[in-house]
Amino acid sequence: MKMFSGQNLWQEAKNIIPGGNQLLSKQPEMFLPDQWPAYYEKAKGCQIWDLDGKSYLDFSHMSVGTCILGYADDDVNTAVIESIKKGSISTLNSWEEIAFAKELLGCHSWADQVRFSRTGGEACCIAIRIARAASGKEKVVFCGYHGWHDWYLSSNIGDEKQLDKQLLPGIDPKGVPEGLGNTTYPFQFGDINAVEKILHCHHEDVAAIIMEPVRETIDIQFLKEVKLLSQKYNVILIFDEITSGFRLNYGGAHKNFNVEPDMAIFGKAIGNGHPISAVIGKRKIMEAAQETFISSTYWTERVGFSAGLATLKKMKSIEAQKMVVNHGKAIRKGLNEAAVRAGVKMKIMGIDPLLHVSFDYADGDVVQTFFTQEMMEMGFLTGSAIYPTSVYSDQQIKSFLMASEAAFSDIAKAIQQNTVLKRLKGPVKHAGLRRLTAAKVT
Amino acid sequence: MKMFSGQNLWQEAKNIIPGGNQLLSKQPEMFLPDQWPAYYEKAKGCQIWDLDGKSYLDFSHMSVGTCILGYADDDVNTAVIESIKKGSISTLNSWEEIAFAKELLGCHSWADQVRFSRTGGEACCIAIRIARAASGKEKVVFCGYHGWHDWYLSSNIGDEKQLDKQLLPGIDPKGVPEGLGNTTYPFQFGDINAVEKILHCHHEDVAAIIMEPVRETIDIQFLKEVKLLSQKYNVILIFDEITSGFRLNYGGAHKNFNVEPDMAIFGKAIGNGHPISAVIGKRKIMEAAQETFISSTYWTERVGFSAGLATLKKMKSIEAQKMVVNHGKAIRKGLNEAAVRAGVKMKIMGIDPLLHVSFDYADGDVVQTFFTQEMMEMGFLTGSAIYPTSVYSDQQIKSFLMASEAAFSDIAKAIQQNTVLKRLKGPVKHAGLRRLTAAKVT
Repeated sequence: MKMFSGQNLWQEAKNIIPGGNQLLSKQPEMFLPDQWPAYYEKAKGCQIWDLDGKSYLDFSHMSVGTCILGYADDDVNTAVIESIKKGSISTLNSWEEIAFAKELLGCHSWADQVRFSRTGGEACCIAIRIARAASGKEKVVFCGYHGWHDWYLSSNIGDEKQLDKQLLPGIDPKGVPEGLGNTTYPFQFGDINAVEKILHCHHEDVAAIIMEPVRETIDIQFLKEVKLLSQKYNVILIFDEITSGFRLNYGGAHKNFNVEPDMAIFGKAIGNGHPISAVIGKRKIMEAAQETFISSTYWTERVGFSAGLATLKKMKSIEAQKMVVNHGKAIRKGLNEAAVRAGVKMKIMGIDPLLHVSFDYADGDVVQTFFTQEMMEMGFLTGSAIYPTSVYSDQQIKSFLMASEAAFSDIAKAIQQNTVLKRLKGPVKHAGLRRLTAAKVT
Repeated sequence: MKMFSGQNLWQEAKNIIPGGNQLLSKQPEMFLPDQWPAYYEKAKGCQIWDLDGKSYLDFSHMSVGTCILGYADDDVNTAVIESIKKGSISTLNSWEEIAFAKELLGCHSWADQVRFSRTGGEACCIAIRIARAASGKEKVVFCGYHGWHDWYLSSNIGDEKQLDKQLLPGIDPKGVPEGLGNTTYPFQFGDINAVEKILHCHHEDVAAIIMEPVRETIDIQFLKEVKLLSQKYNVILIFDEITSGFRLNYGGAHKNFNVEPDMAIFGKAIGNGHPISAVIGKRKIMEAAQETFISSTYWTERVGFSAGLATLKKMKSIEAQKMVVNHGKAIRKGLNEAAVRAGVKMKIMGIDPLLHVSFDYADGDVVQTFFTQEMMEMGFLTGSAIYPTSVYSDQQIKSFLMASEAAFSDIAKAIQQNTVLKRLKGPVKHAGLRRLTAAKVT
């Protein structure tokens, strides 16, 4: 089999970068080990060109959901390039920072103040620091995934399986100080009794509840009850909207549910591919940022703010959220119908703009890998997550669904003949963190 | 007095952003309260245009030392804009990441692997996590400033003055969990006995020593002794080169001193104004990154890597380090001579490319503020730090020194007449964190 240039480079990368890159979700092993193109030369709209000049349509996570408007959006790029030509940084501050702050606060009437950073992990860390400083308490009640920082990974101290029930199984708290043990309490989305029990017992020590307002399922009643409990026990409620924000509506997903948090965190989509993240919140809480120390040089860089401003402006003007929701609906419906027709046990979880695909077999990952392999040969990048972009055309979605139909038909035959594994041209995809970190370069 | 547009915007900023911006060192109060232009419209070379179209030459910290090549460098911008046009991000990885990794490792022969992030604070946090994971120990011996994260601020738990002797006095550890108390041991640069004593007593618990290889003074003997102690006690030695890196030579300052650490951290100047930071280290240590979880979406963005690559390439080709060292020498010499001629007690500390100016009077901050005010009226932005850029022309340096000469003459007169404070058109600059955070918006 001819090796892609990207795979050669990836092997080289793993020798000089532990893990090969900076993000688990972009490691080729998460999609199609030894076969995934791994690197890109150019990306525009939903199209990606690899290092060998071969092009694909991205029906996977569109860079983990960073590009609602599609890759290299002309309007965002125009604003960003203008900012760069006029100096991406200086000893003085960027006025775009204030314009972007106003826009972000403007669509969240409950919030008074904002702090900016560059990555989602940083923003979560800032929110937790501010909540702890404002409350004078330090325990955190959480649900779901919130990044790589000590405050979060400490959940696994003493019990490495604590985070297994959250998004990423098998996170080792290695390198996180023992003294952070017992500073967090995890709960499952929807389990209001667990939240009540934790707060009843520990509210005097609890600074904040942090959770995504939506991930796999919508549960407005649960959100309302969490909100009531946060008020009853005087605990700061933080919605992590890094993934869900600006996907269901122009703002946090919580606006769809009429449940307002005390703080919210944004990242990913608000920069459409340019690093920027934000924490917004009520004044009396946010002002605590001044009683601690939260400061970083590159948080002042201009591009993040001008990208954010241009991204929000365009998302609003074209109603991008309606588009990604509709595209998600169409993809869900089409995939489901095609799977039924082929007799393939495929499941789609998640809200329309954040679809999670799985195959309901004992060796589901093998089937998933085969699906990705087949789709790639037909010119589509896809995996277990499909995060639609507004730029998908009806024709592109139709092509993707037709290709999926063909792949499902192949999958059905291979399952019947028990040849799925045999037909893989490389290893099976990795499912989670544990297996991936075990695959060290030697 | 006519209010600058920038000052109006700054007042607005303080209402919606706690602290007004994202970095202490760019708050107008650190230079010239109520008078500093605060915001820029355009920056090119060492010239900055404010919101009122007035332009200045930047003889202050050039965005805290991020822009060795000057603002909006044509070659860096060309590479960055090309990357943006070809898609700043995608589901696939950026090949520039590997090219940049190779260049960074290529000029540090002792290092085998690299991890990237976007800000200096993040990079320090990654280095500490890796060192703790690799050593299986968790205490950190440190000297100097290393960012806003919990691991560092925890030094002040139980003793708020612990960090006073480091760079920023008065850091409140509010919002940092108590369980992190006693995880760090501070020492003063040059005090080898302190380091020996800490390691002698605690080496079994110490993961790493983290320090800047140079800040105010060069002390090669001290660095060599620290290195020997780190080997004797089997403790990981980390050099924080975020500020010092690529300023004395093409690489970390430690290359000038022939002392190799086990890990080094870079940020600021390696992106010439585009967010990128890096941790490099020996393989056996860096591989521990795979036994913990360190991952973030925007760390994969393309611009950081292509900016880094273009910046390093240009710095090497024009020998930018020689230029900033020579400019620093010329500024130091010229300022010192002018101060002596005027009879002003001015002191310059720091290495040539990182000059720190102070006035040796009981009310030194008042004199400093007056100097900044006078210089601004003559078209120069300056403050207590002067971090030269390679783009200064001899003529620009000469103009700056002539203006300083005039300012010193005014200062000398005002001191003699005891009218310095009276001649200030606004409040005195803030000296440190304590005073600044006390000045909250009400």
